[in-house]
Parts: sequence; C-alpha cells; structure tokens
Amino acid sequence: MEDRGSRTEDLDAEDFITRRVAEIAEAVGDGCAINALSGGVDSAVVTLLGHKALGPRLKTYIIDNALMRKDEPQEVVQMFKDLGVPIILLDARREFLDALKGITDPEEKREAVTQTFYKKVFGHLVRESKARYLLQGTILTDVDETVAGIKRQHNVFAQLGIDPEVSFGYKILEPLVQIRKDGVRKVGKALGLPEAIFNRIPFPGPALAARIIGEVTAERLQVARLANAVVESELMGCGAFQYMAILHEDRVTGIREGKRDFGMQIEVRCWDSLDAREATPTRLSFDLLTKISFRLTQEVPGVVSVTYNISSKPPSTMEAI
Amino acid sequence: MEDRGSRTEDLDAEDFITRRVAEIAEAVGDGCAINALSGGVDSAVVTLLGHKALGPRLKTYIIDNALMRKDEPQEVVQMFKDLGVPIILLDARREFLDALKGITDPEEKREAVTQTFYKKVFGHLVRESKARYLLQGTILTDVDETVAGIKRQHNVFAQLGIDPEVSFGYKILEPLVQIRKDGVRKVGKALGLPEAIFNRIPFPGPALAARIIGEVTAERLQVARLANAVVESELMGCGAFQYMAILHEDRVTGIREGKRDFGMQIEVRCWDSLDAREATPTRLSFDLLTKISFRLTQEVPGVVSVTYNISSKPPSTMEAI
Repeated sequence: MEDRGSRTEDLDAEDFITRRVAEIAEAVGDGCAINALSGGVDSAVVTLLGHKALGPRLKTYIIDNALMRKDEPQEVVQMFKDLGVPIILLDARREFLDALKGITDPEEKREAVTQTFYKKVFGHLVRESKARYLLQGTILTDVDETVAGIKRQHNVFAQLGIDPEVSFGYKILEPLVQIRKDGVRKVGKALGLPEAIFNRIPFPGPALAARIIGEVTAERLQVARLANAVVESELMGCGAFQYMAILHEDRVTGIREGKRDFGMQIEVRCWDSLDAREATPTRLSFDLLTKISFRLTQEVPGVVSVTYNISSKPPSTMEAI
Repeated sequence: MEDRGSRTEDLDAEDFITRRVAEIAEAVGDGCAINALSGGVDSAVVTLLGHKALGPRLKTYIIDNALMRKDEPQEVVQMFKDLGVPIILLDARREFLDALKGITDPEEKREAVTQTFYKKVFGHLVRESKARYLLQGTILTDVDETVAGIKRQHNVFAQLGIDPEVSFGYKILEPLVQIRKDGVRKVGKALGLPEAIFNRIPFPGPALAARIIGEVTAERLQVARLANAVVESELMGCGAFQYMAILHEDRVTGIREGKRDFGMQIEVRCWDSLDAREATPTRLSFDLLTKISFRLTQEVPGVVSVTYNISSKPPSTMEAI
C-alpha cells in the first residue's frame, strides 16, 4: 500500500487547498453537494474547501444530536456566519436519545449514533436536497483505526468496502483522507479559520456518548456535559492534544456532610500527542489536578470522586469507549 | 460525650501498655481469651497486649478468607513466630468465596464478609475454644465512621448497641478504642513490633473485597491481588498513609497488538493523612505514576487502563466501596 501519511512539515498547505478545491469542483461538476459540520476541525476544513469549490451549491448542516458540548451548535453557526458561510442548524435531539435508549455496549452505542445520523437524520436531508455528493472529513487516522478493528468510525464506509452509493444513495468525497490531525490544522490555518476552530481539541464522532460508560440518557448527558465544560475551561490553552471528562457507571463511596454518599466518579483524561496514533498523559501540576477535582465535586451534582488517567496509548485509547 | 481522642503526641505509650494489659488481665481473670489477627497493625498490637496479659491463655487465629494480600497469612504467622507468639492459621477461603458469590452491592458485600467471619468461621472457633473473651482491634476512627453511618465496620457491634454477648455468645474487649491509627503505631513501636508490622499501611476489614467494584470472584480477586502487590511494591516507603489498587467493573477500550481490546481498568489511590479522618492524594511524581501504570498494564493480564485518584476525603473516602 502506498504510504499516504506524508510528513506534515512537508505539507504545502496552499498547494493542498488548490488541488482539493479543484478535485471537488471537478467531481461535483454543475451538481450540488451537501455536508455535515460537527464543530470539529476536520468538518470545518471540509466545509471551507467545499465552499471555495462550490459556493452556494454546497449545503452545510449542523445537527444537534443531544451529544454535543455546552452551547456548541449555536456557537459553531455564529463562527461560520462570521466567515460568510451559512450553516443550517437542525434539532435532532429526540431521534438520537430514542436510538440510544437502553444501550450499554460501546459498539452498539457507536452504531446507534452512526445509523441515526446516516440512515435517519442526514440520509433524509440528503435525499430531500437532491445532492448527489457528500463531503466528509475522514482523516488518515480514522482509516488506520477502523481497518485495525479498534473502533467503528462513523465516516469510513468506503475504506471498509461498503459502497455508500448502494447503501445510502450518494457518493462520498473525502478531501482530507491523506492527512492527519496536525495536517488538518495546518490547512485550516491557511484557509483563515479562526484559532477557536482550527485549534479546537478533537471531539469524537459519537460525541459525549463516547464519554459515558453505560446507558446514555438525557440526565447522564447533562452530567457528562457539565463535567466536560469544567475540564475544558481548566485545560483550555494547556497545550495538550486532547482532554475530556468521562462519566463512569461504577459507583464509589463518598461522604457528604458526615453521611455516606454512594456517588458518581468522573475520570479526567488529558493527552500529549502529535497525531493521535500514540499518546501519553499530560504531566499536569497537582495544583491544577486538585482544582479540577474540587470543581467537579462541587459543580457537578452527585460526583464524589475524580481520577486522572495515567496510561499511555497503547495499550489505552484516547477516548474510553 | 467525653473526648476520648486525646492527642497522639501526648500519649505515653509505656503507660498506655501497662494500663491496658492490667485491664485485660483483670477482665479475663483466670479465664481464656481468643482473638483474630488480620495482619494489620491494630490486631497485631492487640495480640501483643493480650499475650502480655494472658500468655498461653490467649489463643490467636489468622483466618485466610481468600481476600488477603499475596502470601500475607504465611508471612504474618512467621513474623509472630519470630516474636515468640504462636498463631494458628485457618483456611476459610471456600466459606468466604461462597458467601460473596453473586453479590455486587458494596454494603451487602461488607455484610457477607462480616457475617461469614463472625457467625460462621470465627464464631465457631470461639464456641469450640470455650473462651469467653474476645480481644478486638477497634480504634476510635472505626467508631466515628460507623456512628455516622458511612461504612459498616466489622468490629464495632458494641458501639452500635448490639450486645455481642447475646448475638454471638462472648464479650468483646477493645483495648485500642481510645486511640487512632497514629497512636496505635506509637504503641506498636513501644511493644517492640517490627517495622514491617507497626508501620504497615492500613488494610480494610473486607480486605480485597473492598477493592473490587462489582462481584468478588476468585478470578477477580487474583487481578486485585496482583494489582495491589504492584502498587504496594512501588509505593512502599513513599511515606504515604495508605495506598491501594481498585479493580473497576466498568470496561474501557484499549489496543493490544493493533487490535481492539475491551479491557479492565485499575484505579490507584495513595493518600496523605494523619488519622484517616481527612485525606488528600499524595503528589506522586509522574515518573512514578507512569512506571506504576506500565507495570499494571504489563503484569496484570487484561488491564488496559490505569487511573490515579485526585479527590480529597471528603467528599471521597479512602477505600472505593
């Protein structure tokens, strides 16, 4: 197999943009395309490449799947509005919560999010839009991990040998499939994306559902959302590759006002990594760890215990499920 | 209530020993007494006080409940043999494992260990021995926590208003009930206990069962036993009050040889504390945390992820369940 993972320091971002824009324009011809924006850097870069190639013939949606971070959909719409790119916000929280009900197995959870997104919500939008082309932010790391069978990525059907034209009725274009996360950031910067987006920490496909061990409910999502907001506010700008809060299903003993409180535990993870293939825990100061733990036990109702992940990837992965 | 928790720096260990030995001798008269040695400092000090007071009229048992640390029963027997105190080792692993089968609730787990110990194994020994007096290593902290309803301690029936004479047919003597852990260590030192015992880190009543979230089985005990041995070997002599490894029931995603491995997570806890009432996580170096994590994922089959607890007590407790 050709080594498509060429070094990021060798990547000529302007040349990359010119080539990908030309390819998109050529593939779509005088047709229409559609894409979904998650708020992450991959789909943001794809949106700008597509917009450069197609202008108003690209329709971009952001879908509120109930699994996003605090205020995220609205903030992303505003950021793109400031860039002159219109985004359509669709509320699909009910569809996703219904699909996740009762599921505790991590793979089934990912599958429920994937299927609800493609078959139900986005598939419906695509069919309605009459667009034949779907732009997607698959990067090289997604392909590696799916081929190795580590995690189901929601965006790599083509690499798995699934023909999306047969399965869903459209063709997928993946302009970022030759580069990794650091390359995407470089291209994003060259495209003029604001710091807040192109330097955004990675967020997994199944979003907060990947940060909840056990069943994903509206109540548990609220705990995970609050905990992630605390962790992000404390670790923003710490220079780490990615950081997150994971809600455990295991309960542990705590004490509140002198009484036993069998409560929840939050696991904090913060990773140093170049490209997500390998990662080590960031050596945060104990002053900061103590502050994060204090805020989580004070600000997130029901949390009595906080841990910090000290494993490396491998054998750990960056997200918990 | 009288403040019985007088300061340890004011404790005159020799005077304390003289008074408690006299009290035990007076209470037991020309009768016989019995006690159980767990391997912890509390029961070790009680055994020496009882031996000073009663000589061969005190029978001391160590009960292998399947929940002890690696090689612990044999090592404790040898240490006391070296001190001239004979200890009887009783294998009751089957009884405890049977009693714990299928139990996941922490309180039920503690209750199963307590009831198997008192009603089944030790109660039987006491009745056979014809001893009317049971020496027990209850310390002041045990009383505090039980009265507050935080955890069921296996050794505080009297304080809870349960009359052990009615319930189990014998009378409990608690020579350490006025002092806390640091006081017990001071007395142990004065009694000539070897460093390895009087400075031993605390181990909970339900032993490894308190360090397993979910069901306690022979297989999961083996994981917890190996993990605790790794953590103890790395943290021995670090100056912390207590340290431990907790086996979680939650599974997390890992990678082994490029393949997805949905594996186990171990939580490491290491506490700075004076007397167990309040505690903060020890600020271990990341070099040491990394080494512990590496050894746990290498040496304990099935472990893919390791965390370090960063909460304080309160709202956390020192043990997980």
